[in-house]
Amino acid sequence: MPINEREQEFLKQVLPFWGELTAEQQRAVKNGSASRHFSPGSVLHSGPGDCAGLFVIIKGQVRAYILSDSGREITLYRLFDRDVCIFSASCMMKDIRFDVHMQAVEETETILIPTPVYRELDQNSLAVSNYTSQILSSRFSDVMWLLEQILFMSLDKRLALHLIELSSISGNRLKVTHEEIARDIGTAREVVTRMLKYFQTEGMVKLSRGEINLTDRKKLESLAK
Amino acid sequence: MPINEREQEFLKQVLPFWGELTAEQQRAVKNGSASRHFSPGSVLHSGPGDCAGLFVIIKGQVRAYILSDSGREITLYRLFDRDVCIFSASCMMKDIRFDVHMQAVEETETILIPTPVYRELDQNSLAVSNYTSQILSSRFSDVMWLLEQILFMSLDKRLALHLIELSSISGNRLKVTHEEIARDIGTAREVVTRMLKYFQTEGMVKLSRGEINLTDRKKLESLAK
Repeated sequence: MPINEREQEFLKQVLPFWGELTAEQQRAVKNGSASRHFSPGSVLHSGPGDCAGLFVIIKGQVRAYILSDSGREITLYRLFDRDVCIFSASCMMKDIRFDVHMQAVEETETILIPTPVYRELDQNSLAVSNYTSQILSSRFSDVMWLLEQILFMSLDKRLALHLIELSSISGNRLKVTHEEIARDIGTAREVVTRMLKYFQTEGMVKLSRGEINLTDRKKLESLAK
Repeated sequence: MPINEREQEFLKQVLPFWGELTAEQQRAVKNGSASRHFSPGSVLHSGPGDCAGLFVIIKGQVRAYILSDSGREITLYRLFDRDVCIFSASCMMKDIRFDVHMQAVEETETILIPTPVYRELDQNSLAVSNYTSQILSSRFSDVMWLLEQILFMSLDKRLALHLIELSSISGNRLKVTHEEIARDIGTAREVVTRMLKYFQTEGMVKLSRGEINLTDRKKLESLAK
């Protein structure tokens, strides 16, 4: 489905290079782009075989993750409204030698700028090329944050911090599985379960089926510091 | 010290965008750049306060690492002859939100293109901007490789692989401390020492003061697979 007036307007607002494009380049983006809807759990991008293009998120949430040979997933970062998925166009960047997967977490509306269209811009517009570097820098920073957490921060702190972050989105009763938490903080499910039980004995959380209730936020916060 | 004829020639060969620069831009690089020599152990770049510019390595070896609050170091990647340090100019990229440190491992000869000179090129030359993205992608790939090692590969494999890599540079007798290995594979010194002792009992290495002798390379290789 080609993009409508409202979506064109959205691209103009979100893409900082829009005003620097020639009339012809703007036309190429308008005519070449398409609306794409993703239901929760559906895949936007799946490793190196996939190279649809740049997804601009209108509304929703996308999780980027890596996958081990044994199928273990680790979340790298999450993208929200007005964010841009660059690795879904990674085939245009010859020095990217890793595979990222992306999955919609909520109902997600996007605009797809296909790889040939974006590549053309990146190779011909200085503003677009600078923007590509900027997005890469931003994702690089996300991954470095994760790496530092994993290397330097003890697991109890990471878990406490993660629970507090989740609660700032959805309140003190978290509907989240131990598996999902494990993915997000880069460890195994068993390790999360064990640590949550410890948190429960310390009165910081109450565990029940499919739910984690934060019962002592102050204590969690002081642990996370 | 400004750069000489030979160094100018080197920049022309190493920087793929050289031919795309205007005569004026080429002049700015030639006049603005400087030779910089670093002895083993000396620091090229130290976190966010530092922003000298792009170092182009003529000859030598540079280690990029991150540092925890408690002073623990983790090696991110290493740069060799004809490589380029981009994070020593990271202040010009506004979305870089992490601190990298860089240290010469051997006698290292570099040419420094100062940040104001490189920024000017990056903002005005499409070829340079594309090159910046390319270097970022390449370093990003290095860090993703490290992250995957740490998350997905067990420590015995990582250590075996690292010993084999070291031996391909300097032969079977490795002059390397347990501390250095720990930094490079992202763990603590004690953990490396314990695992090396296990390797010794398995006949794969022989440990002596300041040296690790690989006594069964085949066995190490099959472990690393």
